[in-house]
Amino acid sequence: MARPGDRQVLVGGKARAPFDIVRAAHAELLVTDLGRSREFYVDQLGFIATEETGGAIYLRAQEDRHHHCLVLRQAARPSVGHLAFLVASDEELELAARFSEARGCSVRRLEAEEEAGQGPGVRVQDPLGFPIEYFSRMAKCESLLQRYDLGRGARAQRIDHFNLHVPDVQAAFDYYYTELGFRCSEYIEGDEPDQTLYAAWLFRKPNVHDVALTAGRGPRLHHLGFWTADTDGIVHLCDILGSTGWHHHIERGPGRHGVSNAFYLYLRDPDGHRVEFYTADYWTGDPDWEPKRWSVNDDRRRSYWGHQVPERWYRESSELQDLEGRPVPTSDPPAQELTLP
Amino acid sequence: MARPGDRQVLVGGKARAPFDIVRAAHAELLVTDLGRSREFYVDQLGFIATEETGGAIYLRAQEDRHHHCLVLRQAARPSVGHLAFLVASDEELELAARFSEARGCSVRRLEAEEEAGQGPGVRVQDPLGFPIEYFSRMAKCESLLQRYDLGRGARAQRIDHFNLHVPDVQAAFDYYYTELGFRCSEYIEGDEPDQTLYAAWLFRKPNVHDVALTAGRGPRLHHLGFWTADTDGIVHLCDILGSTGWHHHIERGPGRHGVSNAFYLYLRDPDGHRVEFYTADYWTGDPDWEPKRWSVNDDRRRSYWGHQVPERWYRESSELQDLEGRPVPTSDPPAQELTLP
Amino acid sequence: MARPGDRQVLVGGKARAPFDIVRAAHAELLVTDLGRSREFYVDQLGFIATEETGGAIYLRAQEDRHHHCLVLRQAARPSVGHLAFLVASDEELELAARFSEARGCSVRRLEAEEEAGQGPGVRVQDPLGFPIEYFSRMAKCESLLQRYDLGRGARAQRIDHFNLHVPDVQAAFDYYYTELGFRCSEYIEGDEPDQTLYAAWLFRKPNVHDVALTAGRGPRLHHLGFWTADTDGIVHLCDILGSTGWHHHIERGPGRHGVSNAFYLYLRDPDGHRVEFYTADYWTGDPDWEPKRWSVNDDRRRSYWGHQVPERWYRESSELQDLEGRPVPTSDPPAQELTLP
Amino acid sequence: MARPGDRQVLVGGKARAPFDIVRAAHAELLVTDLGRSREFYVDQLGFIATEETGGAIYLRAQEDRHHHCLVLRQAARPSVGHLAFLVASDEELELAARFSEARGCSVRRLEAEEEAGQGPGVRVQDPLGFPIEYFSRMAKCESLLQRYDLGRGARAQRIDHFNLHVPDVQAAFDYYYTELGFRCSEYIEGDEPDQTLYAAWLFRKPNVHDVALTAGRGPRLHHLGFWTADTDGIVHLCDILGSTGWHHHIERGPGRHGVSNAFYLYLRDPDGHRVEFYTADYWTGDPDWEPKRWSVNDDRRRSYWGHQVPERWYRESSELQDLEGRPVPTSDPPAQELTLP
Repeated sequence: MARPGDRQVLVGGKARAPFDIVRAAHAELLVTDLGRSREFYVDQLGFIATEETGGAIYLRAQEDRHHHCLVLRQAARPSVGHLAFLVASDEELELAARFSEARGCSVRRLEAEEEAGQGPGVRVQDPLGFPIEYFSRMAKCESLLQRYDLGRGARAQRIDHFNLHVPDVQAAFDYYYTELGFRCSEYIEGDEPDQTLYAAWLFRKPNVHDVALTAGRGPRLHHLGFWTADTDGIVHLCDILGSTGWHHHIERGPGRHGVSNAFYLYLRDPDGHRVEFYTADYWTGDPDWEPKRWSVNDDRRRSYWGHQVPERWYRESSELQDLEGRPVPTSDPPAQELTLP
Repeated sequence: MARPGDRQVLVGGKARAPFDIVRAAHAELLVTDLGRSREFYVDQLGFIATEETGGAIYLRAQEDRHHHCLVLRQAARPSVGHLAFLVASDEELELAARFSEARGCSVRRLEAEEEAGQGPGVRVQDPLGFPIEYFSRMAKCESLLQRYDLGRGARAQRIDHFNLHVPDVQAAFDYYYTELGFRCSEYIEGDEPDQTLYAAWLFRKPNVHDVALTAGRGPRLHHLGFWTADTDGIVHLCDILGSTGWHHHIERGPGRHGVSNAFYLYLRDPDGHRVEFYTADYWTGDPDWEPKRWSVNDDRRRSYWGHQVPERWYRESSELQDLEGRPVPTSDPPAQELTLP
Repeated sequence: MARPGDRQVLVGGKARAPFDIVRAAHAELLVTDLGRSREFYVDQLGFIATEETGGAIYLRAQEDRHHHCLVLRQAARPSVGHLAFLVASDEELELAARFSEARGCSVRRLEAEEEAGQGPGVRVQDPLGFPIEYFSRMAKCESLLQRYDLGRGARAQRIDHFNLHVPDVQAAFDYYYTELGFRCSEYIEGDEPDQTLYAAWLFRKPNVHDVALTAGRGPRLHHLGFWTADTDGIVHLCDILGSTGWHHHIERGPGRHGVSNAFYLYLRDPDGHRVEFYTADYWTGDPDWEPKRWSVNDDRRRSYWGHQVPERWYRESSELQDLEGRPVPTSDPPAQELTLP
Repeated sequence: MARPGDRQVLVGGKARAPFDIVRAAHAELLVTDLGRSREFYVDQLGFIATEETGGAIYLRAQEDRHHHCLVLRQAARPSVGHLAFLVASDEELELAARFSEARGCSVRRLEAEEEAGQGPGVRVQDPLGFPIEYFSRMAKCESLLQRYDLGRGARAQRIDHFNLHVPDVQAAFDYYYTELGFRCSEYIEGDEPDQTLYAAWLFRKPNVHDVALTAGRGPRLHHLGFWTADTDGIVHLCDILGSTGWHHHIERGPGRHGVSNAFYLYLRDPDGHRVEFYTADYWTGDPDWEPKRWSVNDDRRRSYWGHQVPERWYRESSELQDLEGRPVPTSDPPAQELTLP
């Protein structure tokens, strides 16, 4: 059982790992009305449609040079198809496959272009139950970062992180921290004598996180986080959603997180998938970085301004699909972890 | 019974009036712990203490050239001492006194310097029960608008308006609109067949309001509104309050009002008095201005982003004191006006 | 010879005047390529085309309920057709006509709809040589202030002021201050023994100005000023202009003026007409307002950040056309007023 | 002779290198009046003094957990004492020393605490003439990122990069790119037939740069770049400097760079050392990252808004000191590289 402060062997500021994950890179959301989802993500939020096929839309954000950071795929019920990490090379891809097989996971290898715009990949059902994809290359697109004339909505720049609902935060932490070599930036734990690890923020790229682990019915996806350049874009998005009557999709925020220091906004898409716009965190890549502890009893950990968090923000999240397209079974965390102060 | 669209006789873009009110100008709040209130208004919010006597602190905001826009006075129980309007001249002051006497109100004339830094004044218990002061001159101070090095908190620039809780919005509207010559910028009413006037925003100076009338147990003061230059100052104030542990004083926001278009933040001071920081409304001074109607059933009227309004924001407000220092009795509006959608 | 601090007789916070001007309201710019001007004002800057006729485009800004605040009219050479003030009523219109006739000015009365969307008006060649229009009513349009989804460019909200180049600032000041009843917010003058009045900011509506008078070859129009809600919109406009390759139209800024405290950006349109985006000034409507003096030797008066002002910003401005469409002759101010420190 | 697009062998998204540099980490500036420099960096800019000795002040920025990112040291003439890179471990430190010795550089090993708050280090006079320090550990301090109440000036968050003036950009590029394993994010080169490399932005940490190489009399330090969270902090700093009369220290900006997309402000300290506040660049850490080329003839490369760059911004920079404290001799680049379009 690992603790967030436990020593890790570092290589160039990253923890030693069985294969080299660079960063959280894209997600596939299954949606029940592709046209309606397109209205939300493209017309309201301002994502850029790189490619559209009959059943899917490949979206990228303002600075992306990669083909996509978000895939919307038509399906009979809302779910998460997969969450993808970029790895450092084709060789790492093979290491990832072998690691996962050795770990007893289902593994499926993807040919190049099996996913539009993507090189070869590996898809695994990880030990926590999440459908994870690893890939190393993607078709290049023009970055629209400096096409300010085309920017819409919050001008999301890039994907930042996955926030996962898990029934056992400690077990998930052990997997990411000890096995996969993620480092820990911040965590929430109980005060003596309660040593429960309630949540943890874990990173490979050197900002606050690629993956957050929070207690909730799971495995499920709590939200996808997208980076924006500043608070103004986030406020402007709220104003746009009010103007167009899509304001009911705002669930929480804007506000400031204590954890991560981020200025945030949470939205729910037409299928209930949760999306965060996120800015203003910080650098974590120093070798002597030490994670920051928050007490579960500090009311500023979730909202630095003391805002109450809507109950459904704690309770609801997106179901997952396994490699065969079946719903991934879920379970609840211990009751006290769901009744957070 | 006047309606917000009723024709008014205008003089130079202002409605003809028995005496010429220029704008909402200052308020006196009675507080139970002057030191604690000073911490809140000066150290946290950034108001400037122009003068401090044994029992009172006279505060001004960044751009103020007048001696004060807010007076904090030590008292045994929290209350509102008076709300003050600037009138156009000493002559108008006398007209105000006579108008109020003719209207059957208690009237008390103030000598110059009876209030620190203030010229002669008139204090009246108005027909709605509010302790109102009229004055025409005030001692001059240096404006600190361009002393950005000294700006703190949300860098409040000036007082903007008084928001009043009244049990009978229509009666209060009749007084301000028909008798005092305030114009109406926006209002909330019921949909057919409900013709209730739920709230109205009224002005003498040409922006959205000097006075807002909203249904609630009253007469009481719902809040004092202060103008800030932009949204960033308001976000920055929230961050400061989180840093210092005063974040529990944030009651609502930041957010965008549908009515007025303002970006807002509501705080409660140590005695529960409510203060708003407010920016981004618009010009209303054209002679052919027509008030804007909102349906009580439009959920964007209060929060353009669809945010839920905390119950206590509707229910709670500051009690008043009459000219003899006694609590002003209050009554409730009709029940359906308190159970807003 | 009036000085900025001279006493004025006030009526309700406004100076007594022969007719009641409410505010600077619109301008007509003559342009040589209407299509190209449309690209600049509509596609780049984000003005809204209310009406387009063969030879003219009527534009309004985000909050405008009036039909237009800017008219672009096709012409053989760039010039200013007229600058228009809104007056308080039809009666004031007739007073304006008579005042101007008595003053020896050419006067032409306009029928309703002689200008698209406009009620009856009066056009005069004023004693300073400017083609000025007075009008009291205009067709109503939907305000797009809360259509954030439609906002483009700097999201200009409304027209704010006219900045005039005049060869004799003192003479122009006498006309506006003493004859027309404008009040003065700020002014630049020499240090002892130099008592030259170098520039003055004058207002009817209660912010810093409706009209600025600055020394330069004239009578000519230095620029039109438009109000924006915040600094971010102005920065965003610069980014858009860089994106589209229209960045050469940025002449000066963004920056902060010492005078007026405004955050500003100056652009030149395809014919060289100068447009300012402007935010963050302050309230001036108190009866006891006193103008603020700046020394011509204070380098922060023009740029609070000490930025050097481009020479052409001082030298160049838009020629005027008289009521018969002929160029208005110009002359230079005394040499020392053009070689400002 | 390397070109910016040349293939590099990557290890986990970083180029293979003789020793593992994590990031640009701190600089030592020699100043002639420590008190005056303290006023500039602490009182005006808002850096935090972690430690002050008789002859030096150790400063950190808002988010820093490390003891310092900037050292000011009293000296007889202004100069740069050293520029320091954080390396991944103590072992890398020894590799750095040996690499530098093999390269024929002067090398001096530093004991722990020879620099206040710092572990062991290595100082070298690099082949380009710069006094470079490598270190792997530093004393920990409280991060003040969430002490918004204490933030002053532009609220600089952390050091971001060193911009170096070199007489031979190609030679410097070869050293950093080919020998030290920096990757290239953006570069400026001539158009056919001119293949000159005019400037290059190089990184170890995955944003636009740790080191920029630009043509100029050198080796000298052009500027130190500090990261801020948003544009508002930078605008606010300008306003503060205007308020306090330190505005003459603003040299260029605020503006937007084409290269890097950063929103920038350049200041000169009391000794002429140049400091940049910088925000809004982007992620560069993907293994398949390809550098972005700018033509030297594109006027948006330096200023995306087309602003003219002050001549002295190109010409002036800070002299260096070698390991024995003697001035490092400089030479000019070819004339055409100094007369940039």
